[in-house]
Amino acid sequence: MIRALKRRVSVDGRSVVKGIGDDCAIVRPRTGFDLLVTTDFLIEDVHFLRKHSPEDVGWKTLARGLSDIAAMGGDPRWCLVSLALPRWAKSNWVSRFYDGLFEHGVPLVGGDLSRADRVLADIVVLGEIPCGKALRRDSAGEGDAIFVSGELGKPWHQRPKPRLDLGRWLRGRATACMDLSDGLSIDLHRMCIESGVAAIVDRPLPVSHGATIEQALHGGEDYELLFTTRARLSRFAGLPLTRIGTVVKGKPGSITFFGQPLEPKGYDHFR
Amino acid sequence: MIRALKRRVSVDGRSVVKGIGDDCAIVRPRTGFDLLVTTDFLIEDVHFLRKHSPEDVGWKTLARGLSDIAAMGGDPRWCLVSLALPRWAKSNWVSRFYDGLFEHGVPLVGGDLSRADRVLADIVVLGEIPCGKALRRDSAGEGDAIFVSGELGKPWHQRPKPRLDLGRWLRGRATACMDLSDGLSIDLHRMCIESGVAAIVDRPLPVSHGATIEQALHGGEDYELLFTTRARLSRFAGLPLTRIGTVVKGKPGSITFFGQPLEPKGYDHFR
Repeated sequence: MIRALKRRVSVDGRSVVKGIGDDCAIVRPRTGFDLLVTTDFLIEDVHFLRKHSPEDVGWKTLARGLSDIAAMGGDPRWCLVSLALPRWAKSNWVSRFYDGLFEHGVPLVGGDLSRADRVLADIVVLGEIPCGKALRRDSAGEGDAIFVSGELGKPWHQRPKPRLDLGRWLRGRATACMDLSDGLSIDLHRMCIESGVAAIVDRPLPVSHGATIEQALHGGEDYELLFTTRARLSRFAGLPLTRIGTVVKGKPGSITFFGQPLEPKGYDHFR
Repeated sequence: MIRALKRRVSVDGRSVVKGIGDDCAIVRPRTGFDLLVTTDFLIEDVHFLRKHSPEDVGWKTLARGLSDIAAMGGDPRWCLVSLALPRWAKSNWVSRFYDGLFEHGVPLVGGDLSRADRVLADIVVLGEIPCGKALRRDSAGEGDAIFVSGELGKPWHQRPKPRLDLGRWLRGRATACMDLSDGLSIDLHRMCIESGVAAIVDRPLPVSHGATIEQALHGGEDYELLFTTRARLSRFAGLPLTRIGTVVKGKPGSITFFGQPLEPKGYDHFR
């Protein structure tokens, strides 16, 4: 399986000293850049179902990690995938999983293969960003405008598109940024906690066609960016950027939604 | 859980720009160093049992990744842990898991938390090594002596010790190196395949007290290093280094053990 995979992976020998096949991958980071690292699970019956196509599962596995890189404004450089497989996942399933993953065009440099009784994928993405330029979630300031990209409350996606171009463009424009992976209410709450601020949401949300306001507020898996800025923005490359409110002084993490307190109710694995 | 964890982690602000709590960890690699990256699963009922102490499971989770860094001759710098937890694993279990993991002294900079019906841990370790100095498994040459560290065939360890100091010392001394994670016969086979060479094993193996020769040849989890060298070595800091044979020209991957062909029979998840 690993041999077949190695044949399919083409890597740039300048930045990848040694890819798949050794105890570690060896890569060469660029001078003057900070390294971004993220790791995310994709678990059968938690994040996807056996009936989903393996290509979509592969796409989504890497999309989750890329969305984290986008949220920091970074460039994805390399990825690794740990995969644990049950007996039903034959080599054809695995091959199609990697087909979907490779569509993102990020070099795969390593991973791990193991047995389990359901499919478990853990994605590791390494990205780069010029030193000190990463967009963080702990730096929203009072008076900043709160924005979201795209539309909220979208149904389960087969091929969510990580907002990498937008993230890069927001470098130097956003004061804080994170991706909407668990729902606006909980993710805005988290950003406010980390930044030690409160938020007022007092403008219409960009609710996805067919979705309810509840889904837009508390739905997960939007793969959009939530950011704060001092700039007046409205679009980026055709993608709407919608101002939904303002960062204010107050109890860290508290959100006022059209005059009412908003409880964080997005997806939390431990609720 | 994440807040409690953040309070327990102390990180060096020069190399860790941002640790736990954002979409990605932000770290600052050193100029002149290659980056080593490894990821390994530790799965309940595959790699450990629920009856094992959470401290030992935490220790082992990171030990697996550190053994890979040791095999490349690198210095571990940062780690991330993705953890999926069943309902029985309460906050006390998780806290003790991290107690064991922290004993290695490697800064934890991020991870992921998720639900599953058994404990799944995926460890990511980032290490550094001066550019071009990594020990690889694809560079064993004809005529090199084949060595192993320590003893082989040891029973399941609660606290295996990754051979980090030995790995660093082997920089410039070993021609190829890997860790013995699945058993000598399969790991030596893999090294020979990658290096395009064959091996003769014609000297007594350092069999652990109470273990059989079969266990020394095919047992997994030894956490020792297998390496090739042109140097005459016998010990490193009290640890025996035992020459067991010689790299020769031949069918890549084939091993002759005291005149007989040796089949690779170590632990393979997919057999």
